[in-house]
Parts: sequence; structure tokens; C-alpha cells
Amino acid sequence: MTRERLNSEMSIKIFLDETETPRQWYNLAADLPNPMPPPLAPNGKPLTPEALAHVFPMNLIEQEMSTERWIDIPEEVLDILYRWRPSPLRRAVFLEKALGTPAKIFYKDESVSPAGSHKPNSAVPQVWYNRQFGTKTLTTETGAGQWGCALSFACSLLGLTCKVYMVRISFDQKPFRKTMMEAWGGKCVSSPSVETEAGRKYRALDPEMPGSLGIAISEAVEAAVADGTGGTKYTLGSVMNHVMLHQTVIGLEAQKQLAKIGIKKPDVVIACAGGGSNFAGLAFPFILDKINGADIEIIPVESASCPTLTRGIYAYDYGDAAGLTPLLPMHTLGHNFMPAPIHAGGLRYHGMAPLVSQAVVSGLASPQAFLQLESYNAAILWARTEGFIVAPESSHAIAAAVREAKKAKEEGKEKIILMNISGHGHMDLAGYSKFLNGELSDYSLPQEEIEKAKRDLEPLPKIV
Amino acid sequence: MTRERLNSEMSIKIFLDETETPRQWYNLAADLPNPMPPPLAPNGKPLTPEALAHVFPMNLIEQEMSTERWIDIPEEVLDILYRWRPSPLRRAVFLEKALGTPAKIFYKDESVSPAGSHKPNSAVPQVWYNRQFGTKTLTTETGAGQWGCALSFACSLLGLTCKVYMVRISFDQKPFRKTMMEAWGGKCVSSPSVETEAGRKYRALDPEMPGSLGIAISEAVEAAVADGTGGTKYTLGSVMNHVMLHQTVIGLEAQKQLAKIGIKKPDVVIACAGGGSNFAGLAFPFILDKINGADIEIIPVESASCPTLTRGIYAYDYGDAAGLTPLLPMHTLGHNFMPAPIHAGGLRYHGMAPLVSQAVVSGLASPQAFLQLESYNAAILWARTEGFIVAPESSHAIAAAVREAKKAKEEGKEKIILMNISGHGHMDLAGYSKFLNGELSDYSLPQEEIEKAKRDLEPLPKIV
Repeated sequence: MTRERLNSEMSIKIFLDETETPRQWYNLAADLPNPMPPPLAPNGKPLTPEALAHVFPMNLIEQEMSTERWIDIPEEVLDILYRWRPSPLRRAVFLEKALGTPAKIFYKDESVSPAGSHKPNSAVPQVWYNRQFGTKTLTTETGAGQWGCALSFACSLLGLTCKVYMVRISFDQKPFRKTMMEAWGGKCVSSPSVETEAGRKYRALDPEMPGSLGIAISEAVEAAVADGTGGTKYTLGSVMNHVMLHQTVIGLEAQKQLAKIGIKKPDVVIACAGGGSNFAGLAFPFILDKINGADIEIIPVESASCPTLTRGIYAYDYGDAAGLTPLLPMHTLGHNFMPAPIHAGGLRYHGMAPLVSQAVVSGLASPQAFLQLESYNAAILWARTEGFIVAPESSHAIAAAVREAKKAKEEGKEKIILMNISGHGHMDLAGYSKFLNGELSDYSLPQEEIEKAKRDLEPLPKIV
Repeated sequence: MTRERLNSEMSIKIFLDETETPRQWYNLAADLPNPMPPPLAPNGKPLTPEALAHVFPMNLIEQEMSTERWIDIPEEVLDILYRWRPSPLRRAVFLEKALGTPAKIFYKDESVSPAGSHKPNSAVPQVWYNRQFGTKTLTTETGAGQWGCALSFACSLLGLTCKVYMVRISFDQKPFRKTMMEAWGGKCVSSPSVETEAGRKYRALDPEMPGSLGIAISEAVEAAVADGTGGTKYTLGSVMNHVMLHQTVIGLEAQKQLAKIGIKKPDVVIACAGGGSNFAGLAFPFILDKINGADIEIIPVESASCPTLTRGIYAYDYGDAAGLTPLLPMHTLGHNFMPAPIHAGGLRYHGMAPLVSQAVVSGLASPQAFLQLESYNAAILWARTEGFIVAPESSHAIAAAVREAKKAKEEGKEKIILMNISGHGHMDLAGYSKFLNGELSDYSLPQEEIEKAKRDLEPLPKIV
């Protein structure tokens, strides 16, 4: 009987009420076995907080540099997050049955937020801290559009103005992302745009260029700095330490939800990784468990066409294409890398969050890369078993979970697999349509691109 | 403190765990003060169960004709519904604040289902009962695409084949609805199609015709009957008694959720009404309370361009355009009515569920009609306060709630308003885009259309 399955081993959905939800974020920087190499200023010296102050408010800079293990979530931020959080933890019983696997597959569903992905988990606190600091306008970049929507949504609720530079290929492929941002009162322009020097430079090089996250970041940073009043700041939806921090509500909730049904730890934790925020959100609290001795395999999943963690170089590199950001210690394919036009726009970033990179370097996470077609196949299997149509980014995590579940079947092991669905695929149906009509191909990266990245990185400071 | 607001008067989200959810559907037919006029066969005589057997399985026909008050929900149906149910009940605190109203506005959110609307609440049991009966293939029609998606989703999980006739104007406006249906393995064709006699007839009359729900119903019924093996049946996503029944989980959950925070009854219950299933789902359990003496204002909200309840005629009429269905006692604008191309496709139906019509005739519900622009204005206010982008159908309910909340402010009354968000607007952003760009107009129905409907209905049997 379903009634008896509530919060039991047989549960298909695990409840958590607001009194049980996490009230602090978890900061992995407090626990990494090796100290993080510092970000560097253009002069090659470690970055000072003051050097970031023209771009970010000081309260977020403090968070960015903090090594406190637990950081309180402000009450007003909780009030907004609780519109949709805690997000559901469900067991994928229909998928398990279809695969005939002894594995138990659990998944957090971050698609339930108003913006449709995990991104508002950081957009809401970033806007809140900016408002505390006196910021009136926020600029940002967006790839697939998830972050631009999340920031527009958060600005709308908290009364700030929002300006989004959206990577041109996505802007053209997904016109309704702009409509969503406008519904929340945000402004969205195609990048490279004519509004910034960086944008005009790239348009002059190639008027038809599809754009990239790196270029869009350059534009958004320039636009923030250009407002001499200090009332405009820049926000980033991934990569930075404070973004990883904000996302940890996902994993902290999952731990409590699993504990409710008597599961002490998962055996495998899987999440897709573009800039790293979705992966960090689910995985970092479990990496803490791993540091404390738990036997957990932790898998960031990336696109084989943009294999930053599996084939990139661990080095100092710029976060953007124009070299406006500080130098970050991270896995990178070079800041000039131009990714193939796969549909998972959120996985088309040349770099990786330094905290995620450091976790991989320290052997705390074991990345895997998946091709587009295997990922779409997994997404269709998911739709026809679990019912939900997921974002193409999330389909990479599902593909990895399916492989793990099949391995468990071969080995006859009753593994606990936990993964994260980063968002819904309602804005990405063009990709599904092409896949179902057999019009999609795979892209994997030629080795010469890696060699080119190495040459591009040669002049930059080395990680010692 | 947020923690203290859990399940209290100040709650912004009210939890309900699976042990507390309804395990029976509520059948309003058991409690209506006046007996329902029976549906009629083409010969003008009351319809027998056998006369429906070429279209529906007998177990659903029994439900259709049942006057039992409570009907058990099968366990396997619950197991699927519990993927996303109970749906959230939230308090619209940000909207209340923006309006400065003393009213408390609560809303059920049915957008959280895999198909994105309330429709799976009936699709899952309909497919389940058909499978019990031995049906292999289901046909149906869809307007905006919500029902076609819901049926494809349910067929996918339960292993049936699904064929959907989609009203051409929506098929063209919303190509990704077809992609969604295909992701779940369903087949979707534009209606009028070349696949049925009814379709070919309408295409011959006008090759450019935008189609209508009435025509699509004719096609789907014809396709079901044409399979001589009996293995193909037809399903309807609204109008019929058993569909209203299945949707009552919405209102039954809402009652329990309100009770949890000490609210005995709402003062106003609001839901949009096209064919009636969304309205019935929220409202019928509260109509029972009203029959038992509770003072509740119950408002079905329709489009002013298709004002079935507010300006239509209560009469026997066909459910479809070609006259293939039984004659139903309902509010209608005539089965030849061709609605204006408003974006709320689900509100473009010429008739209304007989149970909803009867509730209105009995004075148990007081319909209101809203123009498109006021509804979109309300939807944008909603997005910028509550954060969610809703379906254009649901925007009509929000517009009505905003008016009620403003009235409460004028009167200084602390009213409890409860409404239903029938689905998300992620597939309807073209309408939002046009609205934000000032490209939408209002459509209200000329009186001569009503006169024409009266003439069309003249030859049909009268309700005595």
C-alpha cells in the first residue's frame, strides 16, 4: 500500500518540512585537504578583496574569500527560497524497473523553481546581498538562459534592475528565454552586442560569430564597471566560491531526506558540471562525508565536446574570453576555446569552478564525459519512465546514472545512486525535436584543440 | 522567523504528506440539489451505457454514470499521482503585499506535474482503467496541447499507444507540444487532418481553417470507432463526469491543507473554466461544503471571447462540431461556434461540463468572464511578485483573484481567497512576448453570435 511506503525504504518521494531544512550553507573551502591556490590579479600577485570591489559588493567578496565551514542563510533569503524548497527527492522506481537494476536511484529535482533550474538558489542570495550593500542594477551573462532567468526573477522580487548579456547562439535558438526575462522585468541583449567595447571588438572580428560565455562575461563585467556611480555590480551564476556555497542547500537537503528513510550514505553521487554550480550544490556536502571517511564515488559529468575536467589543463586562466577577470586556478580548455554547438548550453564553458577543480585534483571527485546522443537517449528513457522532460544538461547526469545502474546489475550489487536534475527541458524542446528526428550528431574534441589550449596558457602564471 | 511560520497562519507553503492525501474521489452527482438531465442518444432518448461502449471502456462508463458520493482511487493510480502530488498550496504573500490587500490569497499549483498542468490527474486513471479493460490504443483531441501531453505521458508510463488530434491553430503556434508528446512516445497530427472523414470534410470546406476542439473531437472519436477490433478507445480530457471526478483530488487536498493551518473554509474559490475540469477539480469539494451550508462564493472564470457560462445558452448540444457525440445538457455557444484566436487555448471550447453547468444553474457557482489583456496584466503582476510564469488559462483566474483582493481592500475585509493555477506558461511564451510588445488585442463576443447559436440549437431536443 502506498500509505505504508511513506518515508520508508519503498518511498518514491521523500518529504522534508521547513523545520528540517538547512539554515546554513556549507563551505568546502574549510575542509579541502590542500589549500586553494589564490586567484591572481593581472600583475600575477594574489588578488586582494579591494581589487574585486569595483565588480562585486564587499559582503559577497567576504563570502567569496571565507574559509568558515558554515555560513548562516539570511531569513529573508530563506523566505524566498521556501517558495519552492525543499526540492523533492524522488526514487526513480520506474527507471529502475525498466533497467532491471538492483540499484536504487534517487534524484533531487531542481526544476521546480520559478525559473526552472537550480540557479535561483544563488540568484536570490546574490541579489539580496547586493541590495543590502546598496546596489541598484545588476549585470550578468547567460548561456542557455537559465542564469539570466534566475537573476531576472530574483531582481524582480527584491526590486533591483537586471541586465543580461545572452550568448548569441542561445539567444537565437531560444527566443523565449528573453521573453521570460522580460516577464520578470529584466533586459536581455544578444552577445556580442554593440553596447560594450568587448562586444564591438568581437563583432568586428566576425559579424556572424555565435558568441560564447567568455565573451558575454567580458561584456557584463565591462557594463558594471562602466557605471561610475558604483550602483551597478556584476553577478556570476557559477564558477565562484560563493555561488558554490549558495548551491549547497541541494546536497544538505538530500542528506536529510536520505537520512529520513534510513540511508546513511549514497554509494554514488552524480551531477552534471558546466561551470560547476549544479555539481557543487549536490556534491559538496557529500565530499565532506568522503573527507570524513565515507566511501562515496562522486562523479561530475561533462560534455565530451567541452571536456574541461576530463581532458582540460589544470592551470591559471581567465574566466572570460577578453581577459577581464582575475586569473583562476582551474581546469580549462583555454579562454579562447569555442565550444561545438551542442544543445546543453550550460555545459559549454571553457573553465570550471576552482573549488570543483581542486576537489578533482585532490581525488575527491572522478569526472566523466558523455556524448550528446547517449545523453538524449537517456533523457528519452527518463521521460518514458519517470515522466519528466529534463534539461539537456541534466540528461548527461541521467546517462551516467544509467551506466552506473547497468554496472550494478552486472555486478549484482544493490548500490544507492543519488543524482541531481538541474532543470526542466521546456525551453530546450528544439533539441529534443532534432534528436527524435535523427538530426543530431555527436561532437568530441580533437586533440589539437587541447594542444592549442596549452600554447594559449603558456604565457600565464603557473600553479606552484 | 521562518521556522515558526511552518503550517501556521503565516505559512507561505502548506505541507501535506502522503498519509494525509485523499484516497477517494468526490462525485458531485451524488449531491446536486436537482437531478442531472440525462445525456441523450441521437434518437433523443436517454443514453444507455451500451451506447457508449464503442467509444469508452465499461469501467469508465460506470464511473461516468455513477451517483456514488465517494469512489476509491486505485493504488497503482495513487503510486503514479504521488510522483508530484499532493500539489503545493502556497500563500501569495508577495502579491498580497503588492496589492496592499487585507485578503489572504492561497493557491494550489498544478503546474508541478510532468506534463505541466492538472490534466494528468485524469489522464493517469483513464489510461489505467482502459488498460484494465484491455484497451491497447487511445485516441484523443487537444486544444492548447495540455491534454494531449498528459495522455501521452500517462500512456507512456502504463504501456498504451497514444494518438492525438491537435487543433491546427495551436499545432502551428506551439510546435513543441508535438515534440513533448513524441518524447513520451505519443503521435500527434494537426486537425483537421486527412486521416479521418470528418477531417477531410472540414479541409474541403476551407483548406486554411484554424480548426477547433469540436472538429478534433470528431476526428478522435471517428478514429477510435474505425478500429473494428475494439482495442482502440477514445478519451476526453474534460467535460465528462468521470473527468470532473478524477480532478477532485485538487480540492480535496486543498481542504486538508487549509484545515492544517486552522482555516475552516475559504470565502472565495476561483478557477478558470474552459471545458470545466480545472474548475471542477478545485471547486466541487467546496460546492459540497456550500450545499451543507458553508458561505462560500465559487467563481468559474472564462474568457470573454468564449463566454459559455456567462452568455451561452443552457441547452442540449453536441460536444463536438460534427455531431458525433451524445447530446449533453450544458451551457453552450453552439457546436458550430468558432472562437477568436486568443492565446488561452484551453478556454476556447463551445460547451461546458454538464456537472459544472448544473452547478451554475443551481446557483452553486457564479461565473465571471475576463478579457485577454486584463488577464495577461494579472499574469505579469503574478510573475513579478509570486515568481511563477503561468498558463494563459490560469491568468484568467489570477485576474479574478486580483479583483476580489482589491474589493476586499475597499471593503476592509480579511477574506480568504483560494484559487487554482492550472498549469505553467512555458509553452505559451509567444503570447507573453506579444503582450509585452503591445501586440495583443481583446476579443469580446458580438451578440449576433449568441443569436446564431440559438438558431443552431433550435432543432435539438429541449431540456425539460
